[in-house]
Amino acid sequence: MSTQAPHPALLIPGPIEFDDAVLQSMSHYSESHVGAPFVKTFGEALTMLRRLFITEDPASQPFVISGSGTLGWDFVAANLAERGDDVLVLHTGYFADSFADCFETYGVRATQLKAPIGDRPQLDAVEKALSEKKYKLLTVTHVDTSTGVLSEIEALSKLVRRVSPETLLVVDGVCSVGSEEIQFDKWNIDVVLTASQKAIGCPAGLCILMASGRAIERSRSRSTPPGSYFASFKNWLPIMQNYEAGKPSYFATPSPQLVHALHTSLTQILSVPLADRFARHKEVSQKVKAAVTKLGLRQLADKPENQANGMTAIYLPEGFTPPQVLPSLLKKGVVFAGGLHKEIATKYIRFGHMGVSVMDPKREEIDRAIVSLGEGLAEAGYKA
Amino acid sequence: MSTQAPHPALLIPGPIEFDDAVLQSMSHYSESHVGAPFVKTFGEALTMLRRLFITEDPASQPFVISGSGTLGWDFVAANLAERGDDVLVLHTGYFADSFADCFETYGVRATQLKAPIGDRPQLDAVEKALSEKKYKLLTVTHVDTSTGVLSEIEALSKLVRRVSPETLLVVDGVCSVGSEEIQFDKWNIDVVLTASQKAIGCPAGLCILMASGRAIERSRSRSTPPGSYFASFKNWLPIMQNYEAGKPSYFATPSPQLVHALHTSLTQILSVPLADRFARHKEVSQKVKAAVTKLGLRQLADKPENQANGMTAIYLPEGFTPPQVLPSLLKKGVVFAGGLHKEIATKYIRFGHMGVSVMDPKREEIDRAIVSLGEGLAEAGYKA
Repeated sequence: MSTQAPHPALLIPGPIEFDDAVLQSMSHYSESHVGAPFVKTFGEALTMLRRLFITEDPASQPFVISGSGTLGWDFVAANLAERGDDVLVLHTGYFADSFADCFETYGVRATQLKAPIGDRPQLDAVEKALSEKKYKLLTVTHVDTSTGVLSEIEALSKLVRRVSPETLLVVDGVCSVGSEEIQFDKWNIDVVLTASQKAIGCPAGLCILMASGRAIERSRSRSTPPGSYFASFKNWLPIMQNYEAGKPSYFATPSPQLVHALHTSLTQILSVPLADRFARHKEVSQKVKAAVTKLGLRQLADKPENQANGMTAIYLPEGFTPPQVLPSLLKKGVVFAGGLHKEIATKYIRFGHMGVSVMDPKREEIDRAIVSLGEGLAEAGYKA
Repeated sequence: MSTQAPHPALLIPGPIEFDDAVLQSMSHYSESHVGAPFVKTFGEALTMLRRLFITEDPASQPFVISGSGTLGWDFVAANLAERGDDVLVLHTGYFADSFADCFETYGVRATQLKAPIGDRPQLDAVEKALSEKKYKLLTVTHVDTSTGVLSEIEALSKLVRRVSPETLLVVDGVCSVGSEEIQFDKWNIDVVLTASQKAIGCPAGLCILMASGRAIERSRSRSTPPGSYFASFKNWLPIMQNYEAGKPSYFATPSPQLVHALHTSLTQILSVPLADRFARHKEVSQKVKAAVTKLGLRQLADKPENQANGMTAIYLPEGFTPPQVLPSLLKKGVVFAGGLHKEIATKYIRFGHMGVSVMDPKREEIDRAIVSLGEGLAEAGYKA
């Protein structure tokens, strides 16, 4: 029996449903942020992040900071590029536009490489762009939450290393860490930034980053100071190193309750082999996508290789809008999200299938949601 | 009976002990950050902040952002001053040095006006400084957590308005909001920045600001863009206005669990007249300070008018250090903090007395802590 009050199943692409034990960790009694018990909890959470990102390189550095995924962009823009530098932003939806805005805020010139909605920039186009200009870093949204488009990180990394070896590879993993395979060392990634409330399965409020030794070195060898005080690798690096070494340390007060919840969720995630976790997300995603197709509906991401495994963005039938469809789904106990990509926001809905809703065999909310989607559309007059 | 597991009483100057109902709100089931129920909760929390800061001016704008108090400095430095501007930082401890560092990060020139440890800059010195140079804003730490020194906001505001009416008055209220009186409108304040985990009584993870219409206007009339993407009034202003108007809105994902806890703590705070709350904090503070004096100990803040009402920074007897004293207090079930002011960190300890530990008549931890302090010192060989 769940300890949570009855509530509609939250199946948006984040925040997701949380496990009972994770939510209970949120109400941990108050502890000093520099006392031995909490230092141990925080240090263990950082060490577990190394396992989640599959990195054994001791130069890799995890960061857990109060904030949101968006704050991760400030970390990248304010530390890994300098005023006047060029960066290349691969665009697969809303979040690339915003990341580019963030760069511009710090005086960094962001060139966007765009693809049609539902698609991703092809490797030959990326190669061409990289050969035309010197980019300090390249960013890619692993899964764009606005479109459900999946990017290919390993092939991209090989390309960057071959064509422009000095360019750092930055992965926006807000909607992918925990539901898509990420091999930090093997794929030679420099930064993955993410947030707590999606497939990591911990309530919102934490910005989480993994930075390579090369990225840290880049932030150290700047010719100008970092562009942010709160979002500064320099200010947080000794703090994270101290927590992981079991030593109290202070720059700004972390959130003990959120870190406890993160510790619980990471412990759960790492209790099964990561390969099994990603396989299970793929399997459930295939089931959702097959059901969508059977209903005669199309996805924004229309090629199988472009499709995320933790969410599905679904075009509504012609003439239907999210405000017609979402309330009737809510009455059936299922919360989906509306569209977010500005050009087509009124034409599609988003179905998140990540974390405990996928991994906990006692939960049946995804099967229920599939049924509800069909029923809700039928009741609204749609004939598959 | 408390629903919390048995634990030592956390009496550091933040994070503080939390009420059972606040901690239970932390484990609220997952909700969409743009769904009607959470939008209502967030909007109500923002409106309650207006009451906590005693502002009825509709131009005043509350902000609640995932982060910490430190992030509030970035908001001020990146939005209310521009590269090359001068600002005046009144120094009463560690946190002024850090706030000045934050300004320098954004290219803003911070002039510090210092006082001897335990004292605060006098009004005539502030007046002299303001008449010598044009400062875009003046910052004052209402209570410096490193020293327990209380600053005088109302008199300072009158002085600034008289001598340099264009200068914005920015109050760092991290260690004062909820334990010290703040009259946002009446005292003509432009910004109060604070965090959730001190006298507001909600777990750490939220940066909270109240900005005047004049401050918002200053951020709008900049000649250069704001210096931060995440810490940008421009990016968050429409979001906060929408939440308070009951409309869903998105810039970055807020933390529903933390906002629920904030809603609960603000509801509790506002259930008694604020004047009674501040009087009670003063009364308990006087009791603590009298006990400290009776033990033959001195405070860092040695003038009564300089002494905070939510914490006490206490010099240890000659020859005693925090590592000798704090562990024996922990054995008695009381957690105090060590020193933080770099020049004298090994010579003093800090006792926080804020929030439910002060306001809840069922809690006896402050009386227990007073007794424990005397016993702990006696056991360590000190004779009062």
